Amino acid sequence: MKNFLSINDVSDLHELLLKAKKIKENPLGNFQLGKGKYLGLIFLNPSLRTRLSTQRAAYNLGMQVMVINLMEEGWRIETADGTVMDGDHVEHIKEAAAVIGRYCEIIGIRTFPGLKNRKEDYSESILEKFMKYSNRPVVSLESATRHPLQSFADIMTIEEYKKDKNKKPRVVLTWAPHPKVLPQSVPNSFVEWTLKMNYELIITHPLGYELEESLTENAIIEYNQDKALEGADFVYVKNWSSYSDYGKILSKDRSWTLTLDKIRNTNNARVMHCLPVRRNMVIADDVLESDHSIVIQEAENRIYTAQAVLSQIITDNF
Amino acid sequence: MKNFLSINDVSDLHELLLKAKKIKENPLGNFQLGKGKYLGLIFLNPSLRTRLSTQRAAYNLGMQVMVINLMEEGWRIETADGTVMDGDHVEHIKEAAAVIGRYCEIIGIRTFPGLKNRKEDYSESILEKFMKYSNRPVVSLESATRHPLQSFADIMTIEEYKKDKNKKPRVVLTWAPHPKVLPQSVPNSFVEWTLKMNYELIITHPLGYELEESLTENAIIEYNQDKALEGADFVYVKNWSSYSDYGKILSKDRSWTLTLDKIRNTNNARVMHCLPVRRNMVIADDVLESDHSIVIQEAENRIYTAQAVLSQIITDNF
Amino acid sequence: MKNFLSINDVSDLHELLLKAKKIKENPLGNFQLGKGKYLGLIFLNPSLRTRLSTQRAAYNLGMQVMVINLMEEGWRIETADGTVMDGDHVEHIKEAAAVIGRYCEIIGIRTFPGLKNRKEDYSESILEKFMKYSNRPVVSLESATRHPLQSFADIMTIEEYKKDKNKKPRVVLTWAPHPKVLPQSVPNSFVEWTLKMNYELIITHPLGYELEESLTENAIIEYNQDKALEGADFVYVKNWSSYSDYGKILSKDRSWTLTLDKIRNTNNARVMHCLPVRRNMVIADDVLESDHSIVIQEAENRIYTAQAVLSQIITDNF
Repeated sequence: MKNFLSINDVSDLHELLLKAKKIKENPLGNFQLGKGKYLGLIFLNPSLRTRLSTQRAAYNLGMQVMVINLMEEGWRIETADGTVMDGDHVEHIKEAAAVIGRYCEIIGIRTFPGLKNRKEDYSESILEKFMKYSNRPVVSLESATRHPLQSFADIMTIEEYKKDKNKKPRVVLTWAPHPKVLPQSVPNSFVEWTLKMNYELIITHPLGYELEESLTENAIIEYNQDKALEGADFVYVKNWSSYSDYGKILSKDRSWTLTLDKIRNTNNARVMHCLPVRRNMVIADDVLESDHSIVIQEAENRIYTAQAVLSQIITDNF
Repeated sequence: MKNFLSINDVSDLHELLLKAKKIKENPLGNFQLGKGKYLGLIFLNPSLRTRLSTQRAAYNLGMQVMVINLMEEGWRIETADGTVMDGDHVEHIKEAAAVIGRYCEIIGIRTFPGLKNRKEDYSESILEKFMKYSNRPVVSLESATRHPLQSFADIMTIEEYKKDKNKKPRVVLTWAPHPKVLPQSVPNSFVEWTLKMNYELIITHPLGYELEESLTENAIIEYNQDKALEGADFVYVKNWSSYSDYGKILSKDRSWTLTLDKIRNTNNARVMHCLPVRRNMVIADDVLESDHSIVIQEAENRIYTAQAVLSQIITDNF
Repeated sequence: MKNFLSINDVSDLHELLLKAKKIKENPLGNFQLGKGKYLGLIFLNPSLRTRLSTQRAAYNLGMQVMVINLMEEGWRIETADGTVMDGDHVEHIKEAAAVIGRYCEIIGIRTFPGLKNRKEDYSESILEKFMKYSNRPVVSLESATRHPLQSFADIMTIEEYKKDKNKKPRVVLTWAPHPKVLPQSVPNSFVEWTLKMNYELIITHPLGYELEESLTENAIIEYNQDKALEGADFVYVKNWSSYSDYGKILSKDRSWTLTLDKIRNTNNARVMHCLPVRRNMVIADDVLESDHSIVIQEAENRIYTAQAVLSQIITDNF
């Protein structure tokens, strides 16, 4: 594995899952692997879970971590070609990426979509340019379109909690209301990873919230949330803004909030969310405080999956 | 020791003091103890001394540290139960604490009182909730009502500098003026720790600055500063705002500033302060630049006492 | 070596260069040297390259690093003597430096000139006071008047890329336009270090941009940029504001921007810059994307030169 930007960078998902599982059993088992290797974590917008879990994963491998909060540290990066840089942008991404590539063996980067211009967001230009100019393995810490470290942890958690090891689980991805405009990155990559696992995937959301068509062609789309939830083994709750009417909030309908009532028709489903979760908006208190919820276990798995990815990248590239 | 929130969490203070003393003699003597253990330091308001000393203490034990400046990183935490989170609060403390508990073996947290509502501040709800939901040992890095790591370092410093090892020292805690509204946390816990040590404790301050009565019942309160200072072995200077007229500044009277003149009536007293100190407002230059002052030595002891606490928690819990 | 503030702190430059070269060949060769030693990096203004390269240098020696962004963390430091601190300044530099000196074996500090008052800036009072009160080796991470870690890396890079090992290279320092007011620190110390190396140094800039006279007396000043560039082996490009008309921008003349055209009269020169560089303002795209540019290699050398300095300080002081 050179980079980790999406499921397409994973040649053997089952092997990688096995690696994460072994790491969970013995997190410090490979403490020498990362010695003298440095992970640069670049944030273009704030992060709590992703930073801490990836930092811990790196430390567990004996790596050192350098956190770079580009925005907070006042470093405005130019990305366009040919500009005369006589304004507010202090440095061009060509130099910034190349220099960070000299200081860090592996670069993790979180970018966030503007959610105004779909074509621009979906081009993932910052991520692409960091890969091109840093000349180092790049790990997405969530991009405009995907959040692969999250999805990998989601899959690991489903594998741990599925009741029948020989049957593919019925997984429902349900939209839920939220006060702010959020990207499609988490649902997009959840769809990619669950389909790669051959899970039965049902996606439910109000009209107008369809994800990019090419991603969801092997999933079932069901606009009736109650019907979608019937027989579910796992319910993955998440808000996102519209893809077709790009970046718009089309609904804040609280009847989509996941409550304990709604879980009665499931197959005693486990409830997941990438966190942070807005209580009683996205998921009700009664669900989060029941045994249905595995959101904390899911968050813990972020360590082991990140560690599996870093460990694979070190082994393959250094 | 499970948590470290106040003197009540210390079962044997003399043993813990001995531990800190041994650590000071050989700070790296237990460099393997914390290997693969992670300390999360959460700041709800800024810190210099506490962050650096606790970080160093953890590094001395071979731990890794993850600093979380919740405010700066724009993560607004909901603490009330049952709210519909459709506003500015991004995450509930129930999830935030639980997740950080999965990423860190020990959690240090600094909270700061609002100084508007005494009942609310003194309930220490954030600290209590972090303990409850993180399921990890929690170390107070200063809370609304106490600053136990500071008080432990204060006691260690008094033990080092007391002239007669067989006599209990006469310790004066004196209020001093300050331009800003400050909490009672440092004096509160200084009182608790010095009384636990059976020191002779005299507290002096203008009328209206009485600390919570239950804390000071074994101390002498003397409203005349000059009289209070007579024969003192140690003078601990600190500003705080009113407890009875909660959070109010009742006086900025500079005649309470500790000057060299005032020390003449003491028993050649050592002068202490938790720092940062406003020069010539709280303590005069001539005191801070004399041999009376042991404020820097006191600050250094923050390392060894924090290290003793972390070391005890690791030994008792992992 | 006790401190590292300028070339004057280096007793044997060739020996230090050799040390940096050996470190580059084997960066982890001395991983035990810094064990249990702590580097405090204090920033009074933001830094990317200096922070990351120095952090990595310290990690390569097995040190731990504590970053202190004084401004961001809201810690306003008083530097004047005798003030009654009843305003916005939270702590006096006397205490701040002394305490950080108890928590860190080596202190790196970046200060930035106000660029209003030359006498004040050139007195380097913050740096001086940190040295005086911290009682620890102090490394300049760029001060008002110098940037010695940068200059050391510049020299190392010139030594690597010079064509004829037996001839002193012809080095041109050229001013270039920039939209913001910048200090003279980088050109000042570049002049000092190159002259110490006995390079042939030509400085070119518009009238009014003369550096402090005592620094440049062994260099050639040539106001015609084209003429200055003739036969150059290395072209060091940098903007600075006026020293005589202190802190003023006297020109933004884009005819001074370094382009590929201008390099034709050089001796196939290598082009250097300390970064960040404003593309097409300071240096044109066509230069930065040609083989003439060694700005990224120069940035990488920041690691090894910082590591040589830290390593020398540890060896000489602990």
